Amino acid sequence: MGKYEELFQYIERNRSRYVDWAMRLISVPSVSTYGTGLDECADLVAEMMEDVGVRAEKFSNPEGGGPIVVGTHNAEAHATLMFYNHYDVQPAEPLEKWTTPPFAPAVRGGLLYGRGAADNKGNIAARLAAVDALNNVLGEIPVNLKFFVEGGEEVGSPGLEKFAQTHRDKLFADGCVWEYGYRNKSGAPVVYFGLKGMLYVEVEASGPGKEVHSSWGAAVENPAWRLIHALSTIRRPDGRVAVEGFYDDVVYEGEELLAQVDIEDFSPPHKLLKAAQQNPLKNLLLEPTVNINGIISGYVGPGSKTIIPPSASAKLDFRLVPKQKPEKIFQSFVDHLKKNGFDDLNVKMLQAYPAARTNPSNFMPKLVTETAKEAYGIDPVAIPSGAASGPMYVVTDVLGIPCVSTGCGYYGSSVHGPDENIRINDFVANIKHIALIMLNFHRYMHLG
Amino acid sequence: MGKYEELFQYIERNRSRYVDWAMRLISVPSVSTYGTGLDECADLVAEMMEDVGVRAEKFSNPEGGGPIVVGTHNAEAHATLMFYNHYDVQPAEPLEKWTTPPFAPAVRGGLLYGRGAADNKGNIAARLAAVDALNNVLGEIPVNLKFFVEGGEEVGSPGLEKFAQTHRDKLFADGCVWEYGYRNKSGAPVVYFGLKGMLYVEVEASGPGKEVHSSWGAAVENPAWRLIHALSTIRRPDGRVAVEGFYDDVVYEGEELLAQVDIEDFSPPHKLLKAAQQNPLKNLLLEPTVNINGIISGYVGPGSKTIIPPSASAKLDFRLVPKQKPEKIFQSFVDHLKKNGFDDLNVKMLQAYPAARTNPSNFMPKLVTETAKEAYGIDPVAIPSGAASGPMYVVTDVLGIPCVSTGCGYYGSSVHGPDENIRINDFVANIKHIALIMLNFHRYMHLG
Repeated sequence: MGKYEELFQYIERNRSRYVDWAMRLISVPSVSTYGTGLDECADLVAEMMEDVGVRAEKFSNPEGGGPIVVGTHNAEAHATLMFYNHYDVQPAEPLEKWTTPPFAPAVRGGLLYGRGAADNKGNIAARLAAVDALNNVLGEIPVNLKFFVEGGEEVGSPGLEKFAQTHRDKLFADGCVWEYGYRNKSGAPVVYFGLKGMLYVEVEASGPGKEVHSSWGAAVENPAWRLIHALSTIRRPDGRVAVEGFYDDVVYEGEELLAQVDIEDFSPPHKLLKAAQQNPLKNLLLEPTVNINGIISGYVGPGSKTIIPPSASAKLDFRLVPKQKPEKIFQSFVDHLKKNGFDDLNVKMLQAYPAARTNPSNFMPKLVTETAKEAYGIDPVAIPSGAASGPMYVVTDVLGIPCVSTGCGYYGSSVHGPDENIRINDFVANIKHIALIMLNFHRYMHLG
Repeated sequence: MGKYEELFQYIERNRSRYVDWAMRLISVPSVSTYGTGLDECADLVAEMMEDVGVRAEKFSNPEGGGPIVVGTHNAEAHATLMFYNHYDVQPAEPLEKWTTPPFAPAVRGGLLYGRGAADNKGNIAARLAAVDALNNVLGEIPVNLKFFVEGGEEVGSPGLEKFAQTHRDKLFADGCVWEYGYRNKSGAPVVYFGLKGMLYVEVEASGPGKEVHSSWGAAVENPAWRLIHALSTIRRPDGRVAVEGFYDDVVYEGEELLAQVDIEDFSPPHKLLKAAQQNPLKNLLLEPTVNINGIISGYVGPGSKTIIPPSASAKLDFRLVPKQKPEKIFQSFVDHLKKNGFDDLNVKMLQAYPAARTNPSNFMPKLVTETAKEAYGIDPVAIPSGAASGPMYVVTDVLGIPCVSTGCGYYGSSVHGPDENIRINDFVANIKHIALIMLNFHRYMHLG
């Protein structure tokens, strides 16, 4: 009988109960973009914390996003482990692309479907399940716990930094496990030591303000043309960002860790990676970039309609790496438009936060990767920085806590897309992993 | 008492009856883009023709668009006057921009509102009203009449050319009055001796096919970027079309006629004409161009969502001048994309027809401009070619009939836009003008 056999068996026996916890959370349509269901979901998170013996406090967030829920379990230990999560989710549109409704969680063929299954409600459930399992098997948790759960991550975590600054004592911890992680196609859990930063902007070209017959296009400026010409100047066809100064502060570190990563393990599949992308893995994990999330102008219904559009707008996200300052990049972007003759465009900053990374030699990376092997039975893949973004800098830079990310998703989780899902076996393995992190935290911390 | 006093008084006395005719037509939502209400509207047009003594025949159109209605009045004269019109309209979206519903015609402050008021149902009503007035005042129409009314103009007149080719005898005429015309801000009716041609294309960049988390944007090709980079190569920021060979066949004629035209008379107002446009009038009336009618990709709702869009598409119309062949321009466009590395884009041709012009020295321009002065009490403005497009080449080139356009709209008619409207006084003046064209046709034709 293995070292953790009793614990693992308990978790296995309770898998359907823990899946129900995830489903309860998914059932609340807490879409921060629309501001719906946030209070309700915060209350549910607090209630579920209390149910496993974690004391929950709810703080309203005057800057937007849902209330922040802080959970505390005081084990009178000399080590405190934090979990960062968020209970808000991305909008579920397009709804017609879902096999079953996004907020009616459903289990099919060993998969749990629903908006938030992977990002991030499955992870909240898994972490509370680990607390439950340790309490029931050991009768205690051998480490102090802090749950730091927000409701505005998908809209740029408004107020999170300020909350951290004004609640330093309450948020004291020695190490933090970030919100998410995925298993790759080889079955290895992927562990992230960092995340990219984010600058999300909306650019609008104003036009005639109402639809004008398109025969006037020969003489009247068309806002869609204006926007297209402006956007075409900010990124080269090869993917390189053409905004002056964009790469000035970029420092390349951690490239040696990429050797153990196989691009084919990721989703979306390899075929999407165009030949033009010389080094997709480096681009994905270490390079900053700019992406178009959406663009809209004029008539987009069936067939033909001949108009000059009233206006045109696009949403862009810049993914930033450490040392790039989002406010400085935003200013470079505005200056770039001006220099290229597009100062008539209206630019709005919707999200802005820097990247974050924890040094691989810190105890947290060691703790999380070494326990992963025991929980999953396979070596994890360690990545210096994920491709995605999140306000990890609030933990690493504002609170000064080393931080590593791991979670219950997999390469097919369709995060932010239709039919978001997790594999229940991964969910169970992740509960085991989180329990082992709690069990071993104190020892690793003091090993250094 | 003036020469046409009795006729004009009869028209004035019956103005509300004639406005009712226009309202009857507007009430039928005959949107060819959606294929709705077309049969119903064709039947109504035929019924209204018969009501004024014009024999109506309805021909189904196997190539799409609504049925073609041909109206014939045989006066046993040695001169035949044709009227070309269309009973289909543009989609009315965005519906929320209308003060009253687009297909519930409404009179407010001397204006008649409704989709099709100016384009083109008001004109159908005005022409039938002129027949009614002459019949009632003179007891006869001193010219043979042909009404050539289609139901697919707004979707590129599918089948119209073929119908003309196979019904040459039925469509015999000595001159034609085209569908529309507008009064400018000085009150002068604007008369067009030609129209631009049209090439309407849809361009699509395929992407991952479903939404993918935008962190992948660092490595996976984004279809919105692809489309933007492709489109940015086909038109220079100064408005010049950058497709190789686009201007090869362009011949500049009729520029001398522009001297009498004032750009400020047009709608949309002059302020929309950017300083960059060196010669807006020449661009508008004599230059070919390319316009974006709409572009759509990814998430366009409120706030931020971070995805790579599944695909991206745009609708473009090229406005052509005489001698430019739409099929050749389409091929140049496809070749251009290929040469610039965008042969993965999917290109679809939705409409294609050439430009048309009638020589100013022909009897039709003389007839229409000279009678305009008598009907409106003000000199008309004659324009070598309108900025808009239409299948006028079917009349001028396929059937060989000289053709001039005049109608009941004005600079504020908001054609193709929300709150489309005509001024009832213009509508009445146009009925008088059409009646004078019928009265004087035979004489002008034989003068040459």
